[in-house]
This record gives sequence, C-alpha cells and structure tokens, in this order.
Amino acid sequence: MLNPADDLFIRTLGEAVPGLWLGAAEPRYLEEPRGRWRGQAGVLARPESTAQVSALLAFCHARRVGVVPFGGGTGLVGGQVLSEGPAPVLLSLERMAALRAIDAQSLVIEAGATLQAVHEQAEVAGRRFPLTLASQGSAQIGGCLATNAGGVNVLRYGNARALCLGLEVVLADGTIWHGLKRLAKDNTGYDLRDLMIGAEGSLGVITAASLKLVEPPAVEGTAVFAVASPQAAVELLGIAQAQLAGCVSAFELISGQGLAFLRAVGPEVSLPFAADPDWSVLIELGLPEGMEAEAAFGALYEAAGARVSDAVIAQSQAQRARLWQMRESIPLANRRIGAISSHDIAVPVAEIPAFIREAGAMLAGMGDYRINCFGHVGDGNLHFNAFPAEGRTRAEYDDERHAVMEAVHRLVVERFDGSISAEHGIGRLKVGELARTADPAKLTMMRAVKAALDPRGILNPGVILPT
Amino acid sequence: MLNPADDLFIRTLGEAVPGLWLGAAEPRYLEEPRGRWRGQAGVLARPESTAQVSALLAFCHARRVGVVPFGGGTGLVGGQVLSEGPAPVLLSLERMAALRAIDAQSLVIEAGATLQAVHEQAEVAGRRFPLTLASQGSAQIGGCLATNAGGVNVLRYGNARALCLGLEVVLADGTIWHGLKRLAKDNTGYDLRDLMIGAEGSLGVITAASLKLVEPPAVEGTAVFAVASPQAAVELLGIAQAQLAGCVSAFELISGQGLAFLRAVGPEVSLPFAADPDWSVLIELGLPEGMEAEAAFGALYEAAGARVSDAVIAQSQAQRARLWQMRESIPLANRRIGAISSHDIAVPVAEIPAFIREAGAMLAGMGDYRINCFGHVGDGNLHFNAFPAEGRTRAEYDDERHAVMEAVHRLVVERFDGSISAEHGIGRLKVGELARTADPAKLTMMRAVKAALDPRGILNPGVILPT
Repeated sequence: MLNPADDLFIRTLGEAVPGLWLGAAEPRYLEEPRGRWRGQAGVLARPESTAQVSALLAFCHARRVGVVPFGGGTGLVGGQVLSEGPAPVLLSLERMAALRAIDAQSLVIEAGATLQAVHEQAEVAGRRFPLTLASQGSAQIGGCLATNAGGVNVLRYGNARALCLGLEVVLADGTIWHGLKRLAKDNTGYDLRDLMIGAEGSLGVITAASLKLVEPPAVEGTAVFAVASPQAAVELLGIAQAQLAGCVSAFELISGQGLAFLRAVGPEVSLPFAADPDWSVLIELGLPEGMEAEAAFGALYEAAGARVSDAVIAQSQAQRARLWQMRESIPLANRRIGAISSHDIAVPVAEIPAFIREAGAMLAGMGDYRINCFGHVGDGNLHFNAFPAEGRTRAEYDDERHAVMEAVHRLVVERFDGSISAEHGIGRLKVGELARTADPAKLTMMRAVKAALDPRGILNPGVILPT
Repeated sequence: MLNPADDLFIRTLGEAVPGLWLGAAEPRYLEEPRGRWRGQAGVLARPESTAQVSALLAFCHARRVGVVPFGGGTGLVGGQVLSEGPAPVLLSLERMAALRAIDAQSLVIEAGATLQAVHEQAEVAGRRFPLTLASQGSAQIGGCLATNAGGVNVLRYGNARALCLGLEVVLADGTIWHGLKRLAKDNTGYDLRDLMIGAEGSLGVITAASLKLVEPPAVEGTAVFAVASPQAAVELLGIAQAQLAGCVSAFELISGQGLAFLRAVGPEVSLPFAADPDWSVLIELGLPEGMEAEAAFGALYEAAGARVSDAVIAQSQAQRARLWQMRESIPLANRRIGAISSHDIAVPVAEIPAFIREAGAMLAGMGDYRINCFGHVGDGNLHFNAFPAEGRTRAEYDDERHAVMEAVHRLVVERFDGSISAEHGIGRLKVGELARTADPAKLTMMRAVKAALDPRGILNPGVILPT
C-alpha cells in the first residue's frame, strides 16, 4: 500500500532535494482531454535535472509514495491522471527540455521538449523527425515515448519506438540508467529501451532520449482519392506500395460521416470534393529526385481503375496543407459531436474491410448510432467511433456506452485477433478491458516485469495493470 | 544450481512427454562456426509441436534441468553451445517448420523453418521477407529472432526485431504465450515481443513468429563505387539518402584488405576493378516504377564529385549476383586467413571515419596486424577484424588476442559510446566484456528481468549474463 504525499512528506522532500521546484498543481495538471477523470496531486514537482529526478524518486521509493509522470497532458486514456487512492507526487519534466546533441543521424533531447520543438530542432539541421501528431504543440517527447505514440507517418517510418535510438531513464529507486546510445544497431542484451517505451511511466521515468533523424524526401506530394469502399482503399494501398517502393508516407482513410461532421460542426475547412464521397483516402508521397508527385499520383489513378472515382492532387504547398488540415480536424469535429464510445483498434490490414462491415452491422443491431471510422490503413489501425443518432444527445446513450465498447473490443479480439489499443495505450481507461481480453501468459509476464523493476509499485500506479 | 539431464531424467522425461523425439546429439549439434567451444548435451530433444515444447519445459523447470535452444547453429558468439556445468537438454525445433498462415502483409511460420524457407514462402506470395544473411540456408527463423539478426538490409528494413509482428513463446515453466498477432500497431502493455527478441533463448523459447512481408521494389539495381576514404563513404550515403528518399536498400563498406584476402585465398569471385581500391561501397537501390537504376546511380556519381573515383554499375541480374557474391564471400576469406580477434561493433554513423582511423592507429601501436574492416555504413556497424601479418600464423598471436579485443572494445565504448556487439549478440563469448563495459543500471535491470521470467535459471544458462 502506498502512502500519500502529505504535508510532512512534502516538507521533508523539499529539504532532501534542495532546489527542487515544488508547488501546488494548477487545474491544467489534473485534467485530461476527454474529461472523464479529474486527477489529484499531493504536490507538483518540476525538476530541472536528471539528478533531481533521481533524488526525487529515491525519496518517494523510500517512503512508498506514488509518482505520476505528466507530459503534455494530451493522452487519451487517462495515463496522466490518478483520481483515487493516496495523493501522489505529480512529476512534470517541462523544465527539462534542452537539446543535448545533434548530428545528421540523430539528436539527443530532454523529455520535457514538445514534439513540435523536436521537429524544429531537426529542421534546423536539415533533417526531419517523422513522428507527427495533431497534438504535437503540447505533447512532450517523454510522453510520446512513454506511450509509444503513433500518428500518420507510422506506415513509412514506424511509431515512436522505431524512431528512438536510446534513453536516459530514472528507475523506481532513483537509479539512473544511462542508455543514450545513438546507434542504429546494438545487440548487447535485453531490449530494455523498447520495454520502457510504451510502459506509460510505470517502469521508469524517461528523462532524455536520442532520436533518429531522417532526410526529408526530395519530392513530396499530397492527394485525396475518392474510393469505392474500404476494400478498394486497401487494394489501392497495395498498388501504391507495388509501384512506389515504400515511398508512401501516409495513407489515411476518411469516411463520409467524418466529412459530414466537419460540415455540421466545423472547424471550417475546405473539403476537396463538392459531394462528399462515402470513403476517401488522403495519400502523402515522399519520392526520389527526378520523380514528380503529380505523375506518380496519375499512374496510381490509372492503375486503380474502378477502385477510384475521383481525385484531387494538391497543386501547391498551401493546398497540401489544406488537405492535411481536413484530416487533422476530424478529431475536433468528433469532440464537438460527442462520441458515445471511441475505439482505437487494429486488425490485420487485409481484414479492414471485414471489420468495418461486421462492426457496423453489429452496432446497427444494437441501437441507433452514427459511426465515424477513419484512420491509418497501412497500420490496420482504425478509429472506429460511435456517435448519437442525428438529433439525439450523448447523455441519452449513457447506459449503452459500456456495452458498445465491450462488443467492439470483443469483435476485434475474438474475430480478428486484433488490438483494443493500437496507438493510444492502456492508461487507466482500458485496464479492465486489457485484463479481460489479453492472453493470460502476457498478463503474468507483465506483472512479473512490473514487480521486478518497481517492486513497491510507486510508478504511475494503476496504469496498464490494476494496483 | 541446476541438475544434469542424466539417464534417469531422460527416461522419466520420455514417459512424461509421450511421442517426444529424444536421442543422442550428433556432433553437429555440439559445434559452433568459430570452433572455440564444444558443447555438451545430456539429450537432444526434437519436439514436433508447441504442446511438446511446453511439456518439455515444464518438466525441466520442475527438475531444474537446463535447456539450450539450438537453431541452425550459425551463431558466432557461442549462444548455442554449453560446454561446462551440468549437461543440459539440447532443444532443436527443426521438426517445427510449418507455414501456419500467409497473406499480403505477413506470414506466420514455426521457429524451425530456415530463413531461406521464409524467403521462399514470401516469394510464392509475390512478397519479400527482407532479412538477408549469408547463412540463411542454415539459420532458422527462431534463432534469427532470438539473436535479433541483422545483415545487409537493416538500413532500409530494420533488423529481425523490426520485421516481427508477433511471437508464440514457451516460457520457462512451460506456459505458452499466444502472441502471434499480425498487427502493425499494438499498444496494449509492455513490449514483451521485443524483450524476447534478442534474449538469445534466455527468457523463453520462440516456437513460432508472425513476420512482416514487404512489396519487392519495382526497380532494383546494384553498383560498386570506389570511394576516396571512409569519410567519403559516409558522405556518399548522405547524398544517396537525400537524393533517393530512403530507397537505398544496402550500403556496404569494403576494404582493399578484404579484396586482397579474396584474391589470396578465395573463394574465387569476380572483382569489379582491375586494381583493388583501398575503399569501396556496394550499393543496392530499390526504386519506384518509372525510375531507372542506372540513371539513379549516374546522378549519385555526378553528385559525389571527388568522393568517388570509379564505379561499376551492374548491367544484368547475373552481374548483380556477382557483386553480391564478392561481398558475401568476405567472411569466408576471413575464416581461411584466420582472424586473431573479430569485432562486431557499432558507432554513430558520423563517427565511422574517426573510429577506423583511431582503431587502426591503436592496433598499429600494439603489434603487427592486418585489418579487414567492412560492414554496414548506414547502421554504423563495422566488422573490424584483426589478422596476422603476412607470413605469420594466428597461433603466434594467441597471447595478444585478449588485449586486442579489450583495446578495441574499450575504444568503442569509452571514446565513441558504441556497441561491442552490433548484430551478433552476446552469447557466451562476450559475457565478460558486457559485464565489464555495460552501464550498471542496465545490468541490474537485465538480472531482474531474467529472475522474474526464469527464476530457476534453466533457459540457456550462461548466455548474456553470468550464471
């Protein structure tokens, strides 16, 4: 059992770690974007060095006080808020955002830097850090790694895990792991880096990372193709991959329902087609020198045949930005409509059409919902979100929410051997669903690893595994 | 302390697991390619199902008998041979090689299949499994994953870890982890898959894997460029990446010493230049439709300026194969010469020139050696191998071997923050070097994970960590 970060604890902590910023947590540290939970904190700590993080964790470990790491606060599964139990220390690394090193292949930066800041540093060096999220102005790189963030470029460049070369991590007892290697290959023992990435702060606190940089492609282009069906979208991606040797940077499915939401509630964006197609895909290409994006899209359109009925190829950077703005505004429109239940699922790519068909039919049999299904075709990752019928409110569906979520997850797991969290993580939202759906040996191993690396259970208590 | 797999144990094992193939281990199961160790085995077990592996491990766990997994036997660090201590069960999955499923994005295959067999299955489906090793005719996919194998295409496609979507693993106590997901994204808890990959059989026995398949590039080509120096090679790769948007599939450094060894001891291969350059790079491109490899190599040659003095661009599939044969024959020529000490190291890519310069100068100060340095420029991974001077034998250097290895590793770690094993793993060969050079927190965490998942220490005793 953990102890609260009470007044005596806070006073002695301040004496034990001189110079450590301690104070009350403003409301923004206790909120999360979906408004389901309100966090609590005995104290907010904002260290300015790895040594301070180490001293803080050693102190909390000795006194069995929980520590909740808080990054940009953009996580969607409640990993950043602890609403029950003994009040924890809320740990923000926002004052640790320094660039420590950079070369053509990598940069080393502290965990409190925003993803946007990482992008800017890479750009200064003429390189690119390809992890791209709508929330990158707030999301911190430490949080992106702790949650193994995904986004629109995973198809080509992989998720956060694939883009990280090394980590500096403070372990539960304050020990510092100096693992900031800048190596593309390193087979010297167990893959602790990837174990920390995606552990949501429950195995250690990431304080700095070395990140892989890539060359921006010589030629880039963006287009939206109206496709006949999800099946046509999957086939179109196959054709694109065969033609383009892996030069497809993003391939995003968009549903007519999503465009209808944008028209209904905004934000105001320019939509590519006069009549919204039931299904369309936004395609981003990054090509070698000597190729032309328009010609590549043209060849793809030709090869697609009846799979595609119309296409808009961006003719300028401004038009490219507008197409992306449309895609990236979908989550905001969704929030304005108000989802009954949102599902961040993955299935094998070839199963996307069957999943959309079967999940849609299943929900149609359960009640009166509108479905906005969109996401990352090449990753098999769909955001399959159920909304109230036209004219009805979210509150009217309160009693149905849990049944909808369970039914979708059951279909994903039992029928498609899929994932109930493709990119958002487990946090506190899906702890029960994970326990219900995961392979028992996997749960046993996860508990064993947690007990081995955080025997007192002080690190982000209650995420991923029940306390 | 473990117990030996003695006669009584073997008899009761046979009764406990009906149908399990048990027999004496022929000599080939007790050898390793570098001839440093000779293994021992109380018994060889060749199960034909995951259920049999499970029953076998549960039995060994209960009786505290060690289990050494043996794949294709091609590992270079002694991970497959246990020469001391109580005789273990030697576990070969060669009878478990079935293809369980295949689609356009992935295949599921049992661990005993050779890497060559995986390639062939992918090819039947019009796809490619990009992991490529000289030893792929013998190496089994289970061993490739257990050692996180690398090879020549890591630059573009990543190592074995990056190409694996899911695993079926039997844990130390016989529990089966059913983790054969075929998902590109799955953020449901700790990354146990990547923990098992590269653990060299010490955390679990991989019995099957789902593997990522890729589209073969529409256009492919191969060339060898003679470069002015390692610095020129690194810069040339930078130019290629900027021009070609990630379409560089391989970029292999070859030294004049390596070519001289090929001329001296064979195998007989055709060499591209009449006069061997001190440094050259073999470049493989995989390009989109509409591009021509020769034109792409031409543009690269133009842009390279004085960095490149000559180039041979393959004009046929046969010539491509010959260039690759040259590259892949270098390790065999090395074995015929007989290395004093071989080093599979990684440094940050930009540091490759400095490493080659400083390591060469250091060894020149220590004695009379020939250096054959070759490897994977884009991965920062060099095989930096020291050989006897012309006319001298390997045996004359027996007293120097350890000092050479230690000095090279010290330089790698202390000066370049590099890796003492970029792709071969730790096995039993480098356990001492790892303990000497690794971050203490990393060692502590590895011991904790090992104790958590294999508390009795029966799985491949003595690899990675000392028993």
